[in-house]
Amino acid sequence: MKKSKPTILVVNDDGITAPGIKALMDAMAEIGRVVVVAPDSPQSGMGHAITIGKPLRLDQVDIYEGMEMYRCSGTPVDCVKLAVNKIFKGKKPDLCVSGINHGLNNSINILYSGTMSAAVEGAIESIPSIGFSLDDYTLQADFSHCIKYVKELAQQVLDNGLPTATLLNVNFPAGAHIKGIKICRQANAKWAEEFDERMDPHKRPYYWLTGVFQMNDNGEETDVWALEHHYVSVVPVQFDMTAHHAIPVLNSWEFKV
Amino acid sequence: MKKSKPTILVVNDDGITAPGIKALMDAMAEIGRVVVVAPDSPQSGMGHAITIGKPLRLDQVDIYEGMEMYRCSGTPVDCVKLAVNKIFKGKKPDLCVSGINHGLNNSINILYSGTMSAAVEGAIESIPSIGFSLDDYTLQADFSHCIKYVKELAQQVLDNGLPTATLLNVNFPAGAHIKGIKICRQANAKWAEEFDERMDPHKRPYYWLTGVFQMNDNGEETDVWALEHHYVSVVPVQFDMTAHHAIPVLNSWEFKV
Repeated sequence: MKKSKPTILVVNDDGITAPGIKALMDAMAEIGRVVVVAPDSPQSGMGHAITIGKPLRLDQVDIYEGMEMYRCSGTPVDCVKLAVNKIFKGKKPDLCVSGINHGLNNSINILYSGTMSAAVEGAIESIPSIGFSLDDYTLQADFSHCIKYVKELAQQVLDNGLPTATLLNVNFPAGAHIKGIKICRQANAKWAEEFDERMDPHKRPYYWLTGVFQMNDNGEETDVWALEHHYVSVVPVQFDMTAHHAIPVLNSWEFKV
Repeated sequence: MKKSKPTILVVNDDGITAPGIKALMDAMAEIGRVVVVAPDSPQSGMGHAITIGKPLRLDQVDIYEGMEMYRCSGTPVDCVKLAVNKIFKGKKPDLCVSGINHGLNNSINILYSGTMSAAVEGAIESIPSIGFSLDDYTLQADFSHCIKYVKELAQQVLDNGLPTATLLNVNFPAGAHIKGIKICRQANAKWAEEFDERMDPHKRPYYWLTGVFQMNDNGEETDVWALEHHYVSVVPVQFDMTAHHAIPVLNSWEFKV
């Protein structure tokens, strides 16, 4: 005997008009009752930012027929907080899904990603949460090959739940030739920055942040490896950032204060 | 035989004119050569946000005599990236310190904190990094009782280094009665949001993010416990967010795709 239709909160960081969130809300509508709360403008790279110095707007909008949607003036994390507090009013949704992001959020990108931070915030609120991202930055990105995996992973999380205080970071390779799902760890990698320095018309310099992804990990159990080998990467994520293994090291220090 | 004076990057999220960063740069000037790179305006709650949709400004400023200082138009993480790339030009500093933040960044606050995210970015750049925060939000905060601990912790990190891919999250109780330093784990806690809803003059609602800190952890080895008991809390932090213990759980799922 099945329980009633689950309620699913859909968020993203590319903004409420992005094709990626349309693909995600349509997929989720096949599984449950969908409520969309998304930023009114692109918020890529916002990480876990919240809005504390200015007030927020939250307005219901009618973009796609039959879809309950709200646009928010804040960050992706603000969207989740407002959804829980002002829309669900304490009766939490059964699932929070974020994305589908235009661009990968594997490896170290999880820290910079508004998409993943929204999913992390869902997990902090004890809502089973998943972030989805595709290896295609363009607004023309084709999400169609992701949909069956998105639905399967959402259903598995609804059926099985997730270990306490964890969420999923799911990344898709571009193109249709997917070999399957791989459970992975976050690859050890970073961005090597290369600021593009330019001069404004007033002869003052300004800088565009660019960079090269620098892989420092040969492991075959990483998300980077999985994506390079045409798997969907699934990394279980936690928000306890304690380096537990470092506690005994620090306890061996002799403080002179 | 001592090696030459260490180079110390000082950053924060409260902005370049905050008293907390003045206290920190003065303390660090007793240990090494200081370079300050800080946001030109308050960036509290910016988390690990980076600026990708607009260009950045970085200008040397002459605020305090004899201090090498730069103000940046971006986020705390942008400050670290620009410092490494445009000021140090690849020759990394020996230490990155962030703060002293006006307000605690213990427990779950690490995720929202620009102060801590700047220190995390330093660690991603393989620079030994420490974030410092004081339990006093006001601009009148008194940092004087923190200074001997700040210097001792900075010196210990310079002397001993830190375990690979870790950094320190250091929080101070307000007031002078400190019992000592405690190595801790991040307490399991969250913010229970309470959005303050108001009406603008045009009868449209807007929301101020507020909240109550909700402690879900009775452990005596947490940062929250240490601070409540007048200790300086020191949490070793990592930026591998993989929930390694959840990997076998997910591997037991049978995917139907």
